[in-house]
Amino acid sequence: MIKVVILGAGNIAQHLYRVFEATEEIKVVQVYNRSEKALQYFKNVATTTSLKTLLEAAVYIIAVSDDAIASVSNKLPFTDRLVVHTSGSASMHVLHKKNRRGVFYPLQTFTKGKKVDFSTIPLCLEAREKADFTLLQTIATAIGSPSYKISSEQRRALHVSAVFVNNFSNHLYRIAHEICEANHVPFHILHPLIQETANKINTLTPYMAQTGPAKRGDEKTINDHLAKLDTDIHKEIYTLLTQSIAKTYGREKL
Amino acid sequence: MIKVVILGAGNIAQHLYRVFEATEEIKVVQVYNRSEKALQYFKNVATTTSLKTLLEAAVYIIAVSDDAIASVSNKLPFTDRLVVHTSGSASMHVLHKKNRRGVFYPLQTFTKGKKVDFSTIPLCLEAREKADFTLLQTIATAIGSPSYKISSEQRRALHVSAVFVNNFSNHLYRIAHEICEANHVPFHILHPLIQETANKINTLTPYMAQTGPAKRGDEKTINDHLAKLDTDIHKEIYTLLTQSIAKTYGREKL
Repeated sequence: MIKVVILGAGNIAQHLYRVFEATEEIKVVQVYNRSEKALQYFKNVATTTSLKTLLEAAVYIIAVSDDAIASVSNKLPFTDRLVVHTSGSASMHVLHKKNRRGVFYPLQTFTKGKKVDFSTIPLCLEAREKADFTLLQTIATAIGSPSYKISSEQRRALHVSAVFVNNFSNHLYRIAHEICEANHVPFHILHPLIQETANKINTLTPYMAQTGPAKRGDEKTINDHLAKLDTDIHKEIYTLLTQSIAKTYGREKL
Repeated sequence: MIKVVILGAGNIAQHLYRVFEATEEIKVVQVYNRSEKALQYFKNVATTTSLKTLLEAAVYIIAVSDDAIASVSNKLPFTDRLVVHTSGSASMHVLHKKNRRGVFYPLQTFTKGKKVDFSTIPLCLEAREKADFTLLQTIATAIGSPSYKISSEQRRALHVSAVFVNNFSNHLYRIAHEICEANHVPFHILHPLIQETANKINTLTPYMAQTGPAKRGDEKTINDHLAKLDTDIHKEIYTLLTQSIAKTYGREKL
């Protein structure tokens, strides 16, 4: 059985705790958090607000905000143990070198209170020592997640890519929601289209899946759309993304 | 049984033909197309390249490119029959008024050769006469599609919204694909995140579902991401969408 200590009590800490507890192979022996209050979520496990009282474990998973990773890892009262963080953007070297370092980054958007299915969540793993990497792989396998060996540099690329496909796509949904509301159309009419757009890339590359007036070079429709948009920022976004698509498909003049 | 003539032989014409043929209630009696070649797809149905030989039907569905709708409808050799088009952006009034007019717009992205499930495709219906609207509703119900009464003005709003959630989101996937390739990371690691981003809006509004550095006002991560991006257009898109998200959540200074 692999003993794990989780440091942090936020979204990712909670999701990891829940999925670890559902396995036979992994035992969360303790959860640390600076403040007592956030620890209320964690039942049936020892908790502590003092790093000095941390229990022994095979791996310490630091699931705190990026800014706090270095400080928590500096203050750990032991050396030469495996310490990993769960951040998409922080380098592995943010962790203090007195311990063996690694990264255990679940590439997914976590919603508080919404159950997640770890069997669909890719885990991006990194470790300096081979045996440590193997241990992280074993943990990934135990919770049913596909895992990948990803360097800090590659992870940064994935993190910025994730902003495009997740944060920015969601913002486009938001803009569509605003346009629908302004025109008294229920936004949910667009749900199937949103689903199919996401599904398509399972069988086609995004390059092949592209459709629409910008790809076709259909200036009349583009101008009609711009005339229909009410706000400057929507027009700006429409124009820039149209130009970018046009460029991708060799229609520079649009 | 409702007799239908389809005018056009492209993507939408083919998908409609296939789904109509699978019903008991609808019979495609003829498919028209200007050129013979494109009609090869349509087996077991009369085809013609001459508008003069069009058969009698309860509804004529014009599924041609937006530019050609007016010209096809002008040339129809009959009057006072129900004629509809399938376009998201063309007004109902593009159709010649010598016939009864309507719109039968399936709001989905169609891929050639990929089977579509009409039970998930919203049909946006419009007609001048109440009886015609009811007929279009009956056809929608026969193929299992949810249908909505949508005016030409509302349909235009939906069409531009569809560009945001479909064309533009797909282009963001494309950008992520480029970033992944440049960093030797398999793009498919992002598939589950893309799926979950689309799924989330079934239970949360896009406004509530938003996460990420722009919403948090996390300037350090934003700057790291901009430094990681290699091309000017990617930086421009990142900056503009970040500003738009920041504005949405009252973080104007970003």
